[in-house]
Amino acid sequence: MTDPQFNRIALIGIGLIGSSIARDVKELGLANDVVISSRSAETLKRAEGLQLGTHYVSSAAEAVKDADLVIVSVPVGSSGAVAEQIAPNLKPGAILTDVGSTKASVIAQMAPFVPDGVHFIPGHPLAGTEKSGPDAGFAGLFRDRWCIFTPLPDTDAEALEKLKAFWIALGSRVDDMDPQHHDKVLAIVSHLPHIIAYNIVGTADDLETVTESEVIKYSASGFRDFTRLAASDPTMWRDICLHNKDAILEMLARFSEDLAYLQRAIRWGEGDKLFELFTRTRDVRRSIIQAGQDVDAPDFGRHALDPKK
Amino acid sequence: MTDPQFNRIALIGIGLIGSSIARDVKELGLANDVVISSRSAETLKRAEGLQLGTHYVSSAAEAVKDADLVIVSVPVGSSGAVAEQIAPNLKPGAILTDVGSTKASVIAQMAPFVPDGVHFIPGHPLAGTEKSGPDAGFAGLFRDRWCIFTPLPDTDAEALEKLKAFWIALGSRVDDMDPQHHDKVLAIVSHLPHIIAYNIVGTADDLETVTESEVIKYSASGFRDFTRLAASDPTMWRDICLHNKDAILEMLARFSEDLAYLQRAIRWGEGDKLFELFTRTRDVRRSIIQAGQDVDAPDFGRHALDPKK
Ligand SMILES: NC(=O)c1ccc[n+]([C@@H]2O[C@H](COP(=O)([O-])OP(=O)(O)OC[C@H]3O[C@@H](n4cnc5c(N)ncnc54)[C@H](OP(=O)(O)O)[C@@H]3O)[C@@H](O)[C@H]2O)c1
Ligand SMILES: NC(=O)c1ccc[n+]([C@@H]2O[C@H](COP(=O)([O-])OP(=O)(O)OC[C@H]3O[C@@H](n4cnc5c(N)ncnc54)[C@H](OP(=O)(O)O)[C@@H]3O)[C@@H](O)[C@H]2O)c1
Repeated sequence: MTDPQFNRIALIGIGLIGSSIARDVKELGLANDVVISSRSAETLKRAEGLQLGTHYVSSAAEAVKDADLVIVSVPVGSSGAVAEQIAPNLKPGAILTDVGSTKASVIAQMAPFVPDGVHFIPGHPLAGTEKSGPDAGFAGLFRDRWCIFTPLPDTDAEALEKLKAFWIALGSRVDDMDPQHHDKVLAIVSHLPHIIAYNIVGTADDLETVTESEVIKYSASGFRDFTRLAASDPTMWRDICLHNKDAILEMLARFSEDLAYLQRAIRWGEGDKLFELFTRTRDVRRSIIQAGQDVDAPDFGRHALDPKK
Repeated sequence: MTDPQFNRIALIGIGLIGSSIARDVKELGLANDVVISSRSAETLKRAEGLQLGTHYVSSAAEAVKDADLVIVSVPVGSSGAVAEQIAPNLKPGAILTDVGSTKASVIAQMAPFVPDGVHFIPGHPLAGTEKSGPDAGFAGLFRDRWCIFTPLPDTDAEALEKLKAFWIALGSRVDDMDPQHHDKVLAIVSHLPHIIAYNIVGTADDLETVTESEVIKYSASGFRDFTRLAASDPTMWRDICLHNKDAILEMLARFSEDLAYLQRAIRWGEGDKLFELFTRTRDVRRSIIQAGQDVDAPDFGRHALDPKK
């Protein structure tokens, strides 16, 4: 148990991310009160059943009253509406943050509603799984993962330090970034991979010459990896696509250009070009493992858990 | 220990696949003699160090003498040359098979050299990891995985049954397919996923606006999944691209067409189209898990092994 860092924390949205924060806050004793709010009565009830907080309130506006830290964990397309609802009740001196996967759009949506005296500091923890909802969360999700902040030019340094100390207590490593740059970085490391995964699974699903049951039966030879990403929450990913459009379109254009080059090398049997690319990409994997950003076990160590073994 | 199914097995090529077969054969006692051959002295020595067989021979032609079952496990582009070398010494009545990831091209390369009286039955076990070489193999790799055979029209039924019994002893489930159809199925479930993974890792590696160290640092948010596939053996994948060209180009064209549709939906903010696709792809994942073709643990269960936890 650490000393409480905040008297009262309000969690607006209690899905995978919100509920993981709630579990850590409880386990670590980071707040005296944890007020939880969710859009639907069902999710709110489930959060109560899981004893994720100390208070459960259906209205987001009510939930933020007297809170010293407010964390908004909803799909990025809903952040403006949530900000509008809670703004009148935010306490002067409170810190308002979010966890949304895009940052420029969240700032554009939320900042106009934030009253003077409230410290709005956008954030994004780079941690998650393909599952969603309050049952999917778990304590320790953020441990040793990066949490990126995109503070506004007039952000209060003390409030920023306080928010960082909170995420550090959750085990995160913290970083600052310009919102536009954040959105570009995430477009390549996260958004493009998910979009490509959704696309390839869609392509396979639509073929006439290979049946869907063949695709499923033989999926262990590579395809199944993509289906995990393509099983992520559709609302979350629709919103990301709509709210990081420019950076995503830029990365898609680069990807398609490179794919055309590769396709041409295949068509013309240019083995040396293929070999050169396939060798270069190996080094990237090696660096990721050296940086401790993935496990080195073959097949993600999945073999041990494999239902067919 | 089962009764030996063959007096002498020759393994030509002793990397990930060949050495996994060798380990199973030894563990299960499926042959009296296991003669191993590899192109390089180094790999052959390593196979001996690992005690994978009973005899170690540098010449493939020598290795197949008196063998009842010959399994060729080399990159598909080398299968013709290997067939040419070993053909004169193949024993009448012997079964000759391979494990190559493409089938029509392997048949075209090998069949012309196969002497009368030798049963040539092309095969492909759908099992592997991103690692290669004799140290990467392990017993049980093929357990509960599919092994697809693409027998020629005049294949001897008894020889086919015998070969299937061998793979079943290794734990595989067996299937027959027409070689052209095999190549189409594999193009979508395996070859396209790998090519796309290589491509996206290449794209990320080439960006100017996002540094390589940022890509590595933040790779846990989706990108790292692709780097695993893109760390697969460059020679093997160059050969697959060159030897399954038509099917791969067909799948690439479908993929690109679908991606253009998705890109357009993003550009024009058509959230409903995105939502529809992202929902449909979820079902594919669900079917794969129901079919026992992947683990249901979030993030492939990687969390438990994660070096950063
Ligand atoms: N999943 C990840 O891997 C990940 C990683 C980093 C950041 N993020 C970001 O974290 C945020 C939350 O993601 P999550 O994975 O926790 O999602 P989730 O598990 O689906 O939970 C979403 C939460 O937001 C609420 N919500 C949904 N639509 C809403 C709306 N229109 N108005 C108000 N509330 C709404 C839900 O309420 P009800 O259930 O009551 O409807 C639920 O409490 C998103 O912005 C996402 O981009 C996600
Ligand atoms: N890896 C998979 O996931 C997987 C799955 C199913 C099927 N396959 C297929 O299985 C075959 C073997 O793959 P692998 O993963 O076992 O490969 P690997 O671990 O790289 O081993 C390749 C073996 O082939 C030998 N070899 C390489 N180039 C050769 C050449 N030009 N002439 C003769 N021998 C050569 C190597 O000999 P030296 O080391 O002595 O040079 C080594 O013994 C390939 O056709 C592949 O398509 C692979």
